Amino acid sequence: MSHRSPQVRSHLAQLPGYAPVVPLAERARLAGLDPGDCLKLDANENPYGMHPRVRDALQAALAEPNFGSIYPDPNQTVLREALSRYTGVDPAMIVAGAGADELLDLSLRALLSPGSSIMTCPPTFGMYPFLADLNELNLIEIPRRDGFALPAAELLESASQAAADTIVILTSPNNPSGELVSSDLLRKLLASGVTVILDEAYIEFAGLEASASLLLTEFPRLVIMRTFSKWAGIAGLRLGYALACADLITDLIKVKQPYNINQAAEVAGVAAINAAGEIGEQIDAIRQTRDALYDALLSTDGLSPLPSESNFILVGVDAAVGSGQQLHDRLAAVGVFTRTYSDPALASYLRISMPRADQLDALIDRLNSVL
Amino acid sequence: MSHRSPQVRSHLAQLPGYAPVVPLAERARLAGLDPGDCLKLDANENPYGMHPRVRDALQAALAEPNFGSIYPDPNQTVLREALSRYTGVDPAMIVAGAGADELLDLSLRALLSPGSSIMTCPPTFGMYPFLADLNELNLIEIPRRDGFALPAAELLESASQAAADTIVILTSPNNPSGELVSSDLLRKLLASGVTVILDEAYIEFAGLEASASLLLTEFPRLVIMRTFSKWAGIAGLRLGYALACADLITDLIKVKQPYNINQAAEVAGVAAINAAGEIGEQIDAIRQTRDALYDALLSTDGLSPLPSESNFILVGVDAAVGSGQQLHDRLAAVGVFTRTYSDPALASYLRISMPRADQLDALIDRLNSVL
Repeated sequence: MSHRSPQVRSHLAQLPGYAPVVPLAERARLAGLDPGDCLKLDANENPYGMHPRVRDALQAALAEPNFGSIYPDPNQTVLREALSRYTGVDPAMIVAGAGADELLDLSLRALLSPGSSIMTCPPTFGMYPFLADLNELNLIEIPRRDGFALPAAELLESASQAAADTIVILTSPNNPSGELVSSDLLRKLLASGVTVILDEAYIEFAGLEASASLLLTEFPRLVIMRTFSKWAGIAGLRLGYALACADLITDLIKVKQPYNINQAAEVAGVAAINAAGEIGEQIDAIRQTRDALYDALLSTDGLSPLPSESNFILVGVDAAVGSGQQLHDRLAAVGVFTRTYSDPALASYLRISMPRADQLDALIDRLNSVL
Repeated sequence: MSHRSPQVRSHLAQLPGYAPVVPLAERARLAGLDPGDCLKLDANENPYGMHPRVRDALQAALAEPNFGSIYPDPNQTVLREALSRYTGVDPAMIVAGAGADELLDLSLRALLSPGSSIMTCPPTFGMYPFLADLNELNLIEIPRRDGFALPAAELLESASQAAADTIVILTSPNNPSGELVSSDLLRKLLASGVTVILDEAYIEFAGLEASASLLLTEFPRLVIMRTFSKWAGIAGLRLGYALACADLITDLIKVKQPYNINQAAEVAGVAAINAAGEIGEQIDAIRQTRDALYDALLSTDGLSPLPSESNFILVGVDAAVGSGQQLHDRLAAVGVFTRTYSDPALASYLRISMPRADQLDALIDRLNSVL
């Protein structure tokens, strides 16, 4: 017994933690600028914001007497039916979470004991090493090749030699490098019997036809993560979902927090699905902006953009311009907030989320002003 | 490697799971009644719903261009400052979660390794055994005495003999029995050096002066859990918080999901704090209803209500009337939805959440109609 403060477990005490984005207001304050004059291009949100139809649905919900005051449905019945319409996947194969982050954590927690392993191909989403640390998992990293292509042969070989409960986590399109996982590689991995969590957070920007969801019935060891934070403009409302075989979904529903879906998120998620056609116009605009920005960056001395199937572009920065962090800092000083990474493999890169179409010229002007 | 579905860990495969409340619409459908004609008294929500001032704040937020579409602040700066005003506790000693449930889970996960123990005094909140199962913790139960008084001497003795990392979880007021933890017992436990999680989910109905928050600076091993789900009428928006020493809060912020607070919850929580005076009028009305219902139940043959400091009353049911479950079912058939328990110690009880003052006569009439 002790009178000191309670100590967290030893594997957590030294945890570096996840590096979240700094809020817009804080970044603007640091730059000495008005937030309204800044371009927040650091977190891959939908630059058009919440769609008016989603807003209308929340307005209507607010007028209902019970809205917000009673506990949400633990079985997420209405939401899972809407998700089934959106994905074409049976509701019994769907569970929703407070962002895909919750479901990534829950899946690892449910499937892996401390000391088990996840296998990733960095550079990729920083949440995976964070969750490995949190859950006392071993992190097996199979680095990407030059140009960030997946090391397919090495990955297949490593997966085949890994312990039976090892989970491979792949991101399609990858964050931050922007390319899809090939169907061929995914099929070979799954055919080998390994469990694969495929994070499709950005799949809408590649087109839903690029999703691996059609493989779910064939491969019970495939788990797909999705989110409303990127395409649907509701990152602040926290809504994601997992697609997997019905047995695993049943178990995940049993072990999740019973009331994990905020009622505002439920209303907004159903509304976004009902407005998917209209939001698709925003997605089209984001893709057009991406292609236009890619061309502009390609013709800019000192910058080398990577082709992207997503709503961001990873940009290589020539040494003559400076490091990724230096360009990031110069952009921040003129109110353009981008993302850099502590990973040495990304030291000469920065990631730019797509702005609105009407902000593209300002982005290019400000970028040129600091080069 | 396998082509079967991935199997959850063995300690989870047999998990009984948490028994959440069935949604109102579903209960009404089962009873063949219109939901508007039913009294939902099964989940201790605020029967007055979301306060108009909280609703107004959400309406105003919805009109802001960025609302909902960008990631929430991982450091919860605005929310923690508001919580500091409400609690009188330093913001460095506060972290918010998606309901107190998230923070209970996070605290146990951060502080206890598999095989460590939590100690509870049942009957109490069903989330604790669920979280023990989820986190592979040993559950040491020190049952309450007849009438559900805490077994103070036995608890102190057991805590003093337990492993150094054992966490005692107490609920004040207790759910479902309604009485406060005495300051004397709490001080003795903390003076012994044990870590205590004190769940004050219902403290507003006893009065904030009954909170143990003043002990936080004296005892770094005290962790207090609070929620907006009961007093503030926003159970559906999922907002709770923990109060603890700054070192532990720093660690919890590091290990929590970075974007764990939904933006609607943040707006509603700050608004509820700003409207705490007006919501206090609802709390006063709930307390008056509680006292009136207690008197009515006390004078009803076959029923024995327990005194309550909370927004519910646990009611003993004489064998001549039937079991708790039988009375529950008869009430459900006339549209009064209450809560019963699988715990044998509660077989002859049911718990009734407070209705609105204007619903009290209807509750008593329907209750009398099935006795």
